[in-house]
Amino acid sequence: MNDFDQAMMRRCLELARKALGKTAPNPMVGAVVVRDGQIVGQGYHPEAGQPHAEVFALREAGELARGATIYVSLEPCNHYGRTPPCTEGLIAAGVAKVVVGMVDPNPLVGGTGIEKLRSAGIEVVVGVEEAACQELNEAFVHRVLHKRPFGILKYAMTLDGKIATTSGHSSWITDLAARGVVHQLRAACDAVIVGGNTVRNDNPHLTSHQVEARNPLRVVMSRSLQLPETAYLWNTEEAATLVLTEVGANPHLQKLLLRRGVNVVELDPLTPTKVMSYLYDLGFLSVLWECGGVLAARAIAEGTVQKVMAFIAPKIIGGEGAPSPVADLGFQKMTEALTLERVSWRTIGPDCLMEGYLP
Amino acid sequence: MNDFDQAMMRRCLELARKALGKTAPNPMVGAVVVRDGQIVGQGYHPEAGQPHAEVFALREAGELARGATIYVSLEPCNHYGRTPPCTEGLIAAGVAKVVVGMVDPNPLVGGTGIEKLRSAGIEVVVGVEEAACQELNEAFVHRVLHKRPFGILKYAMTLDGKIATTSGHSSWITDLAARGVVHQLRAACDAVIVGGNTVRNDNPHLTSHQVEARNPLRVVMSRSLQLPETAYLWNTEEAATLVLTEVGANPHLQKLLLRRGVNVVELDPLTPTKVMSYLYDLGFLSVLWECGGVLAARAIAEGTVQKVMAFIAPKIIGGEGAPSPVADLGFQKMTEALTLERVSWRTIGPDCLMEGYLP
Repeated sequence: MNDFDQAMMRRCLELARKALGKTAPNPMVGAVVVRDGQIVGQGYHPEAGQPHAEVFALREAGELARGATIYVSLEPCNHYGRTPPCTEGLIAAGVAKVVVGMVDPNPLVGGTGIEKLRSAGIEVVVGVEEAACQELNEAFVHRVLHKRPFGILKYAMTLDGKIATTSGHSSWITDLAARGVVHQLRAACDAVIVGGNTVRNDNPHLTSHQVEARNPLRVVMSRSLQLPETAYLWNTEEAATLVLTEVGANPHLQKLLLRRGVNVVELDPLTPTKVMSYLYDLGFLSVLWECGGVLAARAIAEGTVQKVMAFIAPKIIGGEGAPSPVADLGFQKMTEALTLERVSWRTIGPDCLMEGYLP
Repeated sequence: MNDFDQAMMRRCLELARKALGKTAPNPMVGAVVVRDGQIVGQGYHPEAGQPHAEVFALREAGELARGATIYVSLEPCNHYGRTPPCTEGLIAAGVAKVVVGMVDPNPLVGGTGIEKLRSAGIEVVVGVEEAACQELNEAFVHRVLHKRPFGILKYAMTLDGKIATTSGHSSWITDLAARGVVHQLRAACDAVIVGGNTVRNDNPHLTSHQVEARNPLRVVMSRSLQLPETAYLWNTEEAATLVLTEVGANPHLQKLLLRRGVNVVELDPLTPTKVMSYLYDLGFLSVLWECGGVLAARAIAEGTVQKVMAFIAPKIIGGEGAPSPVADLGFQKMTEALTLERVSWRTIGPDCLMEGYLP
């Protein structure tokens, strides 16, 4: 591994990221073909059903691929799926060397692509910029290993720990720059979940607010289905909306929602686990919890949150009964607190963003 | 102003800081005498009643002061107080030039020292590293301008905005490094205030926990005086304690406290304003509010908090009814929030510290 290899792998990641939010249930992958120190072909996996990154890169390189080195951020696949195995394509193209960012996270197939290439006489280097490759596809890795989408809890609170005033008013806590980061985050996720309270209190859009960017599926969890008949979320021209409820809840509203193009699904019981399982079956990689404290606590308690993104605004609102980001977890002692791991803090405009992982 | 001047002024500030927490009601001041680019005398004001910084610096320089330049972080005094005016000392010593960090904040005397020196034919430069000089003495400046000590609200909360669990348990929220910063902060303040709830729930020491460092006066505000008969705060060998209450409250405990060496004072009504006025009369510069949310809200509402220092730990404790740092301020809309100014965020170990000023 050397500086050049790292630079090429970072280029692969840059390419891979072009499909951010668009590849589910597949990972984001980028590839570059290099000959005599020059990139002669590059590509990335644009979405499920489309060819893999290696295919685009080899196609662009054409005959120059023979004897060249290819960098790819994830181990080339070795099985027949919707597309033929990339290992065969690489062997047929006659590449001399393959540099792999990370091994396939699926323990059943991880390493077999590398073996196949090696047994065909190709030199294979593994683990260049591995941490960055793992991070880019943390949701995919989680999905593969745990058969569940990767859950991100995102909230914005004041410096005194409130997500709204005593009366429930919450716009806006953070400044424009932080809200822009949230919009990007939504564009990178497959679904965003809120509870009924958020719909009633905030009437949110939950979109990425960008003309070009894609929107996540907007998911509402509501047992009672006592939701307003008009809400931005029911405008399905803006983005798709799925309402999850329990069997037989509010048939009148169900009908109204269906007419508006909102998908309504009854799950029993309506729990975060059940919801995540349903979203797994839809092929989703990453799910953003943008809910209030009560649902957030249930999502955490059921293990459906892996990562926390907390935006903190340097303002004080006060309020004895003002809601805070996480309601009851049943802890009595401060020593029982869930201490986040791999924590980073960074400022975004006047605000601060903490990112970390639940243990 | 040039690099050399700035370096010399920073040396003055370094010297001044040696008396951190010890100078009330006086400011912290440092001075250096420079001749041919070399420091030939330096000094700082160690405590009220002792000579000013210039006196020590001139004393050390001796005859070398004649024709030299003296740097001093605050305008030399021009009046007879407990010590003769420094302007006269400087003129008598024959210095050629005086470089001043900041003008005296007292509008009645600010600038007169500089005028006196100039009229004696001494070259005077004003405003080198002025922002740093102002910041070092922000408490003194506030005291002079507003006839009140400078109030700092300090709290530690979890990432989900709680200062304790639902049951009131709070040790520890932050890690060792952040707690070390709090101990240094206490050593730099003249008093630290808590309410009765904090004494009952946390039984704190409120000391700087350092053998060499000084401790602030520990102040308890309690209307009812329904406080435990044993508490670390009643151990006045560790540090002095003052209990502020209302007239006639719990005479039994009052007697017990007096026997333990705790000072008890009745103020009517017992409000943050009254308390700060009392502490002003004691000559205090800076007062640290380390209280719970209810008292913090009252202190903010009455304008007795100028600066906020919020420590945030990357852990989640949950708790619907768990206390948060600031109770009711009477705000209904998020737009009413008090937005802090001159905000800085920095990490301390795993935790984050926000420092900012109330508008």
